[in-house]
This record gives sequence, C-alpha cells and structure tokens, in this order.
Amino acid sequence: MSLKFGVIGGGSWATAIVKMLTENLEEVGWYMRSVYALEHLKKEKHNPNYLSAVEFDTAHLKLSNDINEIIAYADYLIFAVPSAFVGKELEKVTASFKGKIIFSAIKGIVPETGQIVGAHFHHKYDIPFENIGVITGPCHAEEVALERLSYLTIACADEQHAQVVADHLKSWYINTTISDDTIGTEYAAMLKNIYAIAAGIAHGLGYGDNFQSVLMSNAIREMKKFIKKVHKMKRNINDSAYLGDLLVTGYSVFSRNRMFGNMIGKGYTVKSAQMEMSMVAEGYYAAESAFKINQELGAKTPIINAVYNVLYKGKDPKSTFKKLTEKLT
Amino acid sequence: MSLKFGVIGGGSWATAIVKMLTENLEEVGWYMRSVYALEHLKKEKHNPNYLSAVEFDTAHLKLSNDINEIIAYADYLIFAVPSAFVGKELEKVTASFKGKIIFSAIKGIVPETGQIVGAHFHHKYDIPFENIGVITGPCHAEEVALERLSYLTIACADEQHAQVVADHLKSWYINTTISDDTIGTEYAAMLKNIYAIAAGIAHGLGYGDNFQSVLMSNAIREMKKFIKKVHKMKRNINDSAYLGDLLVTGYSVFSRNRMFGNMIGKGYTVKSAQMEMSMVAEGYYAAESAFKINQELGAKTPIINAVYNVLYKGKDPKSTFKKLTEKLT
Repeated sequence: MSLKFGVIGGGSWATAIVKMLTENLEEVGWYMRSVYALEHLKKEKHNPNYLSAVEFDTAHLKLSNDINEIIAYADYLIFAVPSAFVGKELEKVTASFKGKIIFSAIKGIVPETGQIVGAHFHHKYDIPFENIGVITGPCHAEEVALERLSYLTIACADEQHAQVVADHLKSWYINTTISDDTIGTEYAAMLKNIYAIAAGIAHGLGYGDNFQSVLMSNAIREMKKFIKKVHKMKRNINDSAYLGDLLVTGYSVFSRNRMFGNMIGKGYTVKSAQMEMSMVAEGYYAAESAFKINQELGAKTPIINAVYNVLYKGKDPKSTFKKLTEKLT
Repeated sequence: MSLKFGVIGGGSWATAIVKMLTENLEEVGWYMRSVYALEHLKKEKHNPNYLSAVEFDTAHLKLSNDINEIIAYADYLIFAVPSAFVGKELEKVTASFKGKIIFSAIKGIVPETGQIVGAHFHHKYDIPFENIGVITGPCHAEEVALERLSYLTIACADEQHAQVVADHLKSWYINTTISDDTIGTEYAAMLKNIYAIAAGIAHGLGYGDNFQSVLMSNAIREMKKFIKKVHKMKRNINDSAYLGDLLVTGYSVFSRNRMFGNMIGKGYTVKSAQMEMSMVAEGYYAAESAFKINQELGAKTPIINAVYNVLYKGKDPKSTFKKLTEKLT
C-alpha cells in the first residue's frame, strides 16, 4: 500500500508542494482553511488565490477544510501555512499525531512561543525529533508553477523519512537532496528572511549592488556563526539549503521580506509598511526571535541587531545602517 | 614626501580607481593609450568613453599617453587594463620596474601566457612577489562613479604595501580590507567571470532564479576547491573578496560576462556573440585557462568544465547544462 501524504495550507507554497506530490502520487490530501478556495478548486481546478495558473486534476486530490480529516488520513504531513498562523491552525487539532511523520515547509518562527516549527511540534505534541523534518529551498513557489528546475533539501534526523519525502517530491523539474541537519536548515530558512529585510532596507536607503553583495557575504558568515551556536555539527554553510536559500530570497525583488525592508528604508514606519502590504513579512517575527535567542547564544550578529533595532526599537534606518556598514568587511 | 601613484588604463575600472585616489592625493599619475580620450579629458574634465559623468580636476592629474613616463613617475603602479591587452601594453615598456610596487586591478588571465597577472609580472620582470598585489571588489565601477558605498580588498604578501594602497583608496564611499592572499583573491576574481558566463547561459536557456541560486551556491564551493588546490592557506571563501565578488558579477545583468553567456544560452554562436558585443568577455579566456590549469590540479569543477565545453568544444549549451544540473546539489 502506498504512503499517504497530506498538505496543510492553502497558500502558494502549499499549492506548489501539492503540485510536486501529484507528480508521484495517485492521491494527495490537502487541507485549506478557506471554504471558498476549496469550492473554487473543485469547480475550476485551480487555487483561486495562489499559483492560479496551476491546474489540478481534482480526482487525484483528497480535499478538505477539516484539518483533522487530513491529519487522520496521512502518514506524512507537510505543514505549509505561514508561521504566523500555525498556532491558530493547531488549535483546531483533535486528531492524534501519533505515528505521524511531520515535515515543516514553514519558514519562520511560531510567534506565540518564539520556537522554530520543529521544536514547537516536539514540545507541544511530544512528537519525537526523528519523526520531524524540514523541507527547504532555495525555491520560489512561482517557479515550481512554471516547472522551472528547482532544488529542495529534505532534512530529518531519520534519514529514511527524509528519503521517502524526497522521493515523493522529486520529478523532472525538482531535484532533491537529503540532510540530517533539521535544526540548521530550519534556522537558516528563518534567518534568511531577516537578511532579506536587511537587503531591502539597504536598497530603500539607496545602497547599490556593490554593497548588496558585501551584505550577503557578511550575512552568510553571520548565519554560520549563529547556527553553529544553536547546533554544532559538520555542515557546509554554502550548500544550497543555506547559502542558496539566502540568495534566492535576498536577491529577489519579489520577496515579501525584501519588499517590507525596502519600504522601511524608504521611510515608511513599521506599521504603515505592514498595512500597505496587508500582511506581515515572516522576517519581522524572525528578527525578534533571533535577537532574543541570540541574547543567550552570544553570536556576533550585527545585521540581525540592526534589523531588530530598526523594527522593534524605533531606531532610524539611515544611521543604524551607516553604523552597520562600519562593522562589515 | 608623499608617495606617488600611477594608474595604467583608460577604461571604466581605471577611471574609478583614479577617482578614488584623487580623494587622498594631491596628484595622481594616469596613463591611457588613447590620445583622443586624453585630450578630451584635459579639455572637458571627464573621460569621454567611460564613467563620463565623473568630473576630474585635471590640475591634480599627471596625464600621459606614454606608459614609460607614468611607470618612471610612480612608486605604486596600479594596472587596470583589460587582461586581453596587458601583454600588448607591456611590450611598450622600457622603463624599469625596479623598486616599484605593482598592484593589479585586472580580473583575468594574460592570454599569451595563460597566467594570472601577478604571476606574469613576477616571471617576466623578476619582480619579487612581496612587491606584487591585487585590488579586488566586489565593485562595479559605475557605482564608484555614483559614490555608492563599496568595499575593496587589497591583497599583498607584504602587509605594509597592502595597507598603503588601502589607505590611499579609502574614502567616505570606499571601505577597504587588507589580505595576504594575493593568489587566492586573484584567482577568485578570474574564476567569478566564468561563473558569471555560466549564470548567463543558464538564464539564456530559461532557467530561473531558483536554479541561479543553486548555481551560485555550487560555484562558491567549486571556487573554494579550485583555489585550495592552487594555493592552500587559511581563508574564508565567504569573505567579500571571494563570495561578494562572485555575487556582484553573477547577479548583475550589466556584467559583460553574464551578457555574453546569456547570448550563448539563447543560441548565438561564440563568434557571433563576440561580434555582437564588439568585445571579448574576460571570462572567455578565463574558462580556457582555468580548464587547462585544472588538468593538473584535478579539482572537481563541473561548472567550469561545462562552460569550457560550450565555448571551446562546440558542445550544445542545452544538453551540456542539462547534464550539469544533475551534478549540482
């Protein structure tokens, strides 16, 4: 009997993951909150709100707006809701996670607890760490929709679980690599959003491409130090899951985090930038969490500190970044 | 008595370096081949062909179209001609290099000898390695013209020489770092142009941002292996002089190397792409040299090999890059 996969989330990344899975599975379970989106999907064969160009054969989808139904259905659950909403979604859960393998495709921090998603699942539901994994890019969902070659890293302490997920995501336009660095890849995915905000702030302030490359080069060194303090192990920080993921976000003009930073650099207040974007960039929460976590870790993180000071301490972006430039090499 | 600096070259990078030096020196020596450009500069106060928005106070320039005059004049010579022309310029030299400190701001290989510029000077003129240095980015000349904050790395086996040059280039829009890795920084500056061609080919073939970030993440790992084989020493490949320089070139749509690669990816032949651009991209020569050097080094360089095969062996870009994608992670 083939394994059952369930995807939790109705956004663009969830939609992209369902698309990848349908290349390999007869049926994919898919929970989304919105009844409207679900009905639209059933009738029109595409998600009305995200990646709407992607057509689905709904005969191969098990759709539900009851999260418990999909949790009960699946052996492997992939969570792909924005980190800001994961707490709210989990409140609805009555089904058991026992025996389930949980993979997080969420790039961020659960705001209620300040934990990365894997740790949140472990502590809240007592799921053993070897049953928790991470799916990470570098991967814009939009390019998955276009079937442009993309690489995913699937990390889990249990290599077999990672391999199963990798095998089910792989296709002619998706390459997969497995890793045992669940914690490192998850922190990298979270930290990169802070650096994307920094890139946006710098751009908004008028810094150019020369500076941007220096910022990214310092960011990956800073990320390495931070992650090493969180979880020391042998890893190559220049692997795609770390450096590649940083670059695809930091250099993308479509990144919400970069866009948010850009508005801050151009003089918007944090509140007005958030209202203007009608959403909260993941890196906003990540900056606070990373800053607080690092109070204990003590890694040298001038870029995270600068972003934190601008976003949470009302510090002036211009002078804060001027000071930051003196700390970079 | 203050030290005398002479810049050799009339292109955009030479023009940017002269501009940086004028921030710190009463007089800067400047050789350029073109009499027309020189006369224009004297009358109109700007280089007619490159960075023409930069105004110079010619009272503070010692201009000459006699390379020997500037060599005799200067204590520190900065070469910033395209690597393809450095051999030709050096044929004119009758003045002595004895006691001169030579810095190369040339990103490439001397085609006649297949050597990096530092090695070429050492072998041809018997200049000791401690009197030879490298000036490297990440730094587009165009952003220096706009006085946008940029970082330079000044490398020399003799730290004092590096510091002198760094001090004379530093200003409110230029930050400098010194390094003792002359060979590594020079190879990095050369290799990055090959990777920029690879990025261009991939873009021309229709690969997207997700793949580009994977390519760059693999490129920096490949560069690390290559340079380690050339000259093993403790270096952080993520420093700005290596990773930063790779990123500013690989991600720049204005990079000539990337543009050249893009045309190849879109189906131009090598010859027609070169004719269309009316110039030869540095990375074109670099690809052949790096490939040949690596025959002896034996580093794993799938990206360099792919670019070499496309440019010199007439291999089809599409299938060559398809095979390359399977080797990347």
